[in-house]
Amino acid sequence: MRRYTDSDIAAVYRVIEERRDMRHFLSGGLDPALLGRLLRAAHLGPSVGFMQPWRFIRITDQELRQSVYRLVDEERRLTAVALGERQDDFMRLKVEGVLECGELLVAALMDRREAHVFGRRTMPEMDLASVACAIQNLWLAARAEGVGMGWVSLFDPAQLGQLLALPLGARPVAVLCLGHVGEFYSEPMLQQQKWAERQPLETMVFENRWRNDEEGSPSG
Amino acid sequence: MRRYTDSDIAAVYRVIEERRDMRHFLSGGLDPALLGRLLRAAHLGPSVGFMQPWRFIRITDQELRQSVYRLVDEERRLTAVALGERQDDFMRLKVEGVLECGELLVAALMDRREAHVFGRRTMPEMDLASVACAIQNLWLAARAEGVGMGWVSLFDPAQLGQLLALPLGARPVAVLCLGHVGEFYSEPMLQQQKWAERQPLETMVFENRWRNDEEGSPSG
Repeated sequence: MRRYTDSDIAAVYRVIEERRDMRHFLSGGLDPALLGRLLRAAHLGPSVGFMQPWRFIRITDQELRQSVYRLVDEERRLTAVALGERQDDFMRLKVEGVLECGELLVAALMDRREAHVFGRRTMPEMDLASVACAIQNLWLAARAEGVGMGWVSLFDPAQLGQLLALPLGARPVAVLCLGHVGEFYSEPMLQQQKWAERQPLETMVFENRWRNDEEGSPSG
Repeated sequence: MRRYTDSDIAAVYRVIEERRDMRHFLSGGLDPALLGRLLRAAHLGPSVGFMQPWRFIRITDQELRQSVYRLVDEERRLTAVALGERQDDFMRLKVEGVLECGELLVAALMDRREAHVFGRRTMPEMDLASVACAIQNLWLAARAEGVGMGWVSLFDPAQLGQLLALPLGARPVAVLCLGHVGEFYSEPMLQQQKWAERQPLETMVFENRWRNDEEGSPSG
């Protein structure tokens, strides 16, 4: 069957619309079967040359979770400084739920990726794109199941890789906070908090060549 | 409402399971309203620091489409050579539908990304991850609507960027072939064609630290 029923199509658009990057979690872990479904959804993601470059590390050791948190919090402070005039605004945001979430995962790129040339000879970074698609699958499946997820990229990848004994060539790309939530934000939290606004779609879509009128002066 | 109905959850898992990277298309363009829905789904993707780094270029000029095709075909041949002993296997695969598909899009990273530091100070490549998530949204929405999509990364990004007049700092990340299809592949085409197999999920999931037993010799 090619086109889904109207009801199923609506469900797909709804989950895309209602997915949120969550930083507020309730206590309590996830049912193992549910976590298995989410990981399977990730594993059904597309990958360049079908290389399946994603790896997931469950953090179940509480001391290890504390160490991940320290790395994230250190980078949060360094980011604040780097932001300059927006430093105070940034420090007021809740940007992660590493300690509170019910389940903590680290998503990583596998090692030995150089053996995979298909679709990567000129675009080696397509392996990261594949992992991101897998994570988006997980995110959408979680939302449908009523589970919140946040993608945290505030960390030094070399330090996090060392902490988790990643082999040479592997690389962490996401700290994923998963868990039950009181409610999903009605709009992206960074928009609620006036950090940034969703831009009009029309400004994102060009025809045949780039058109840059963001500053009122077409340059294409 | 937090958890979706069983029926809606099933629809979300189904679209994740049935999404395919398509290279075979029927003739005929897409209804503009449908294309608009797909682009909106992409635009609802997550982005690091809510930076929304994605841009989409619709290729409606047929000569331009031919030029895109030539770039893709050139990289296809160069990839084949780079693959060495798998060269012949690769050349037998259909790896793109650039000329046949009803709608051709190029997805790109915007210029002036260096202004966005949140979540990117140590992980600048998170902008690409955001674009990939947006594309995955588009892909899933297309599948639900019965529309096929293929992600082609066989091109020289500098040459494609020049062809589409991308400004300095912007970068193409995907040639997206969209269109009606006779049928969706029952499994990933690269698996049907014995290029690669889906690996067992268990080998992708570790606990607390990396475990590398892919070669039978644990190294973690």
